[in-house]
Amino acid sequence: MLPVTNPHPAFALTRASHVSIAVTDLERSRDFYRDVIGLVVTEETDDAVYLRGLEEAAHHSLVLERADEAKALHVGLRVRTDDDIVAAERFFRENDIEHRRVERAHQGPTIQFRDAVGTHIELTSSMDVVPRMMQRYDTFVAGAPQRIDHYQCVTHDVQKATDFWTGLGMRMSEYTAKDGTDELWGTWMEIKGNTHDLVFTNGRGPRLHHFAFAVPDGSSLIHAADVAGALGFGDEIDRGPGRHGISNALFLYLRDPDQHRVELFNTHYQFIDLETPPIRWDVTDPRRAQLWGMPASNRWFFEASEFPDEPVEEPLLQATPQTLEQYLGVH
Amino acid sequence: MLPVTNPHPAFALTRASHVSIAVTDLERSRDFYRDVIGLVVTEETDDAVYLRGLEEAAHHSLVLERADEAKALHVGLRVRTDDDIVAAERFFRENDIEHRRVERAHQGPTIQFRDAVGTHIELTSSMDVVPRMMQRYDTFVAGAPQRIDHYQCVTHDVQKATDFWTGLGMRMSEYTAKDGTDELWGTWMEIKGNTHDLVFTNGRGPRLHHFAFAVPDGSSLIHAADVAGALGFGDEIDRGPGRHGISNALFLYLRDPDQHRVELFNTHYQFIDLETPPIRWDVTDPRRAQLWGMPASNRWFFEASEFPDEPVEEPLLQATPQTLEQYLGVH
Amino acid sequence: MLPVTNPHPAFALTRASHVSIAVTDLERSRDFYRDVIGLVVTEETDDAVYLRGLEEAAHHSLVLERADEAKALHVGLRVRTDDDIVAAERFFRENDIEHRRVERAHQGPTIQFRDAVGTHIELTSSMDVVPRMMQRYDTFVAGAPQRIDHYQCVTHDVQKATDFWTGLGMRMSEYTAKDGTDELWGTWMEIKGNTHDLVFTNGRGPRLHHFAFAVPDGSSLIHAADVAGALGFGDEIDRGPGRHGISNALFLYLRDPDQHRVELFNTHYQFIDLETPPIRWDVTDPRRAQLWGMPASNRWFFEASEFPDEPVEEPLLQATPQTLEQYLGVH
Amino acid sequence: MLPVTNPHPAFALTRASHVSIAVTDLERSRDFYRDVIGLVVTEETDDAVYLRGLEEAAHHSLVLERADEAKALHVGLRVRTDDDIVAAERFFRENDIEHRRVERAHQGPTIQFRDAVGTHIELTSSMDVVPRMMQRYDTFVAGAPQRIDHYQCVTHDVQKATDFWTGLGMRMSEYTAKDGTDELWGTWMEIKGNTHDLVFTNGRGPRLHHFAFAVPDGSSLIHAADVAGALGFGDEIDRGPGRHGISNALFLYLRDPDQHRVELFNTHYQFIDLETPPIRWDVTDPRRAQLWGMPASNRWFFEASEFPDEPVEEPLLQATPQTLEQYLGVH
Repeated sequence: MLPVTNPHPAFALTRASHVSIAVTDLERSRDFYRDVIGLVVTEETDDAVYLRGLEEAAHHSLVLERADEAKALHVGLRVRTDDDIVAAERFFRENDIEHRRVERAHQGPTIQFRDAVGTHIELTSSMDVVPRMMQRYDTFVAGAPQRIDHYQCVTHDVQKATDFWTGLGMRMSEYTAKDGTDELWGTWMEIKGNTHDLVFTNGRGPRLHHFAFAVPDGSSLIHAADVAGALGFGDEIDRGPGRHGISNALFLYLRDPDQHRVELFNTHYQFIDLETPPIRWDVTDPRRAQLWGMPASNRWFFEASEFPDEPVEEPLLQATPQTLEQYLGVH
Repeated sequence: MLPVTNPHPAFALTRASHVSIAVTDLERSRDFYRDVIGLVVTEETDDAVYLRGLEEAAHHSLVLERADEAKALHVGLRVRTDDDIVAAERFFRENDIEHRRVERAHQGPTIQFRDAVGTHIELTSSMDVVPRMMQRYDTFVAGAPQRIDHYQCVTHDVQKATDFWTGLGMRMSEYTAKDGTDELWGTWMEIKGNTHDLVFTNGRGPRLHHFAFAVPDGSSLIHAADVAGALGFGDEIDRGPGRHGISNALFLYLRDPDQHRVELFNTHYQFIDLETPPIRWDVTDPRRAQLWGMPASNRWFFEASEFPDEPVEEPLLQATPQTLEQYLGVH
Repeated sequence: MLPVTNPHPAFALTRASHVSIAVTDLERSRDFYRDVIGLVVTEETDDAVYLRGLEEAAHHSLVLERADEAKALHVGLRVRTDDDIVAAERFFRENDIEHRRVERAHQGPTIQFRDAVGTHIELTSSMDVVPRMMQRYDTFVAGAPQRIDHYQCVTHDVQKATDFWTGLGMRMSEYTAKDGTDELWGTWMEIKGNTHDLVFTNGRGPRLHHFAFAVPDGSSLIHAADVAGALGFGDEIDRGPGRHGISNALFLYLRDPDQHRVELFNTHYQFIDLETPPIRWDVTDPRRAQLWGMPASNRWFFEASEFPDEPVEEPLLQATPQTLEQYLGVH
Repeated sequence: MLPVTNPHPAFALTRASHVSIAVTDLERSRDFYRDVIGLVVTEETDDAVYLRGLEEAAHHSLVLERADEAKALHVGLRVRTDDDIVAAERFFRENDIEHRRVERAHQGPTIQFRDAVGTHIELTSSMDVVPRMMQRYDTFVAGAPQRIDHYQCVTHDVQKATDFWTGLGMRMSEYTAKDGTDELWGTWMEIKGNTHDLVFTNGRGPRLHHFAFAVPDGSSLIHAADVAGALGFGDEIDRGPGRHGISNALFLYLRDPDQHRVELFNTHYQFIDLETPPIRWDVTDPRRAQLWGMPASNRWFFEASEFPDEPVEEPLLQATPQTLEQYLGVH
């Protein structure tokens, strides 16, 4: 049965807010996100670089942390108030979910935990406020990313992940299933009123497939690709530009110097009214993946960033060769 | 003192959802909104035409009603559930706010009332679900408007209007004030997580200045203008294309055959985090009105749609000739 | 040695002007070019459909001819005046080039001939004048193609093709060669003042690889792809959207119902001044094919439309497996 | 009678190529054209700055010359070869047109002269070749202007100006006239195969109304306006964005720090075929000036740059108050 959102969750999630990744060459990664993607550097320390989108008043939406090995560190979500952090702690205790309160620079009260499928999550209730740069058009470069928007994670158990997050108030806007059933192969869940904040797809997991920044329009996507080409990162586009059937997003995916994947995308539709059912796509329908155009590369399908010390499990749902072909959109 | 949003409002507003206007030639107005603006006609009856944006799953976001005189009828907002309609009724009773339960085709439980400054409002909790047309790109015309976004109303008392709506949970994202004070000349308030659902500006009111539909991007705005020109409505653009300082919106305003005003616009920024203060603009700063370009026409400043049987009052704050020049951006 | 343009050609070519293709289902092909590509139907007869771009005042730039077998028929070029047609006939006689004067509906004096590598060419000096539709923005659909722009032909002997056409006054703007030599693998030649009217690339030929229409901008390309997806032709994009290094064109290639290939593209640079040398690309440089993004599909590389009764020859320059990989951009 | 182009002109003009203007603060003007418009600085000397568009291989298309007084200096056109410069000298001698051979840095053989209505013109046959920057997308700023495109001059005698230039091989693509006659109020003339290289309109002249650079698309125009706003030049837009009926151009006009006017524009249609007649617009048709939107400002209509030591004459055709209103698009 399809999971139903919990109208009275234990605490109030509000949005996808910040992601931390471990990178092996801090300066090179900073240059990539600043020059090829177009993010703003808020602050640099010896071991970390904090970046944000042009419209963001929050101190950071991407944290690069210097490390020996490239890893996804934490997928960050916001809760509404400090009280929600306290309520979250209570909830995790009551439900035997391992978690810890941490000090994080420029963030209010913050806790870290693993969700039901091992995804590393960080919750915070506030950040230092910095100037929105959205009217400094003279400083826009590359895709002119405005704000962080969502995450896509790979998991061995999409159903379990979905149950966990709908229990916390997220709501499914679209999903993939197979052979007319509702056995979940992928779920698109949202909390902020449009199609997704958090996506889970079936595969070896937990891994972070990508994090996404919203750009102003299709022209920005093309300019981002042109800039990537000009700066020698043309080969690091591993999918797009194209249009997903799911969520109707116009997308471009790039790999950073450590092969973390970042999506630039445009076009959400609003998803607020409770009477609207989620959209079902059969996993065998190639239009779910692209309404038109070239299929994704193999590396888009099979590569993703692991979390530190987190074992990766084989997916419960095994793709047959036919499914794979359908996945890959081969025709 | 600036109004502060009420974190525990009596009922849960969710978004700007639908507007009803009285038109004197139903077919002519339908043609305008379908062909010049690009809305989808969901349904036509003898006395009304129901339209919606391309992505909308709700039955209508614009209702044209046949009448002898052009009027704004109701500005529509959504509440989350049927229970919120009941809670709203209780709240209005307790606060001596005249209201009535009405039957409205294709809508769930619905109530109508006047807000603190006389604006005619309609609340509903649901609508009939119809197909989203957002992937029927072959049917897109003109601006390809995706969804209704917000309203701008003129009022004689911006402070009172703002107090009323922040009391119901709306939150101010930006405002205009004068001479370094916080005496409110205009307020931009939101409930759906970006800059505005409901705007009040100082002037003879209550009147509906415009309702706005979100278009995909700047190219859509230009195409809408080109189509308006091709169809003989080029003169009915009374402002734009331009960029507001306030809200950073790229805008185009058109007058319909009855001189109701509709805005096509692009570019909201997200406004969710509670630590972010509203942005203050001095009413004398011309950049609040346009970051660049030509000033608005006089008719944009002084013309708006009245509500039936609702007396229009002179504004409490009187614009001096200097203020007017500043308003009009004369230089 | 690189061919040099002839500053005093025997007659005055002016531009790529019209292409004729044989199609097996006239109505289906008409629908494709009208609804998926966005061309205007100027006229229909029992056996032919004449189409043109939105800005074109010439009667047709694409002629679909009913046939049992899908073929490329003629690649059409314009000469300046009727006298140039006479001069062309004289030139062809003097140079033993088989040619014939033909009657073609809606065209002035017209001759057909085979060029030095067997490409079927038609020259005319004028056409019936019809209204430019470029300001009828309300009729724009899909990519809103404005005008025919150029052709790409496959030939077994690029050098011979290039010598022939530069002798007739075309000028090379860019070319591909190998291993530091100037042995030509591809040539981009122009007569109208921007990068290309006629392109030849190495391969089994003569075949017509594609004909191209210019669209207003990148947004038009994306909208064309979206419309193709919506109308069930999403799989018929066999390359793009992407950016060629050569010519700097933003491109999208689609296959019509008979698998003829049409390109929608944007962005020419001006190429008028004689002091500007052609740009050389090494055939092993993947950036010549795409500055960024996904490589072309195999079918883009190996499929093209043959001319009737015209034997196809193996290319003089044989691609090695390495070259092929470089061609295909595999990495 | 309408002027007809001369198919065998005395020498071969090829395109609008470079403009020189006198500026009173060289650094401030350089900053404007580089940062607000987006041109590339090719070279700076003590007294001059040479700039070009992103795609241009010619050394300069805009020359800023340090001076005490702001003036238009020369409107530059290209001829095909050095021989054409010699032919031009012969033609000017034979026709008693004052002219002189000059040395101009980075230019081939160059002559300067006054045309029949006193416009200061410079002809050259070549320039130093510099790298095209069109694929250095990472360096694009503001409108990303690609190349110089055309000039608009004000003259007291449009008929005389038109006769002069059509005699030199230019061809009229569009024109304005009054009351059903062909008495010329404005002429759009081209030599490079699209709508205009040189425009003359009726008024106090000779003066340079503006020079124009082509930008990639409508998004570039909007971004240019946004950047102008961000850098404090938002008020210096004295017209647009809008769409001219004449030539179908999407336009934005800005004033530089000396009030010289530069146009950023998009959308030419091709104008090559000889059978296509010019388009006539009645000067009383407001759609000639804008297909839609706000009328131009007064300063757009009445201000322009004078040439040094060149007396300005009153126009032969006197605008009545009604014509003025029509000009200004007042309604």
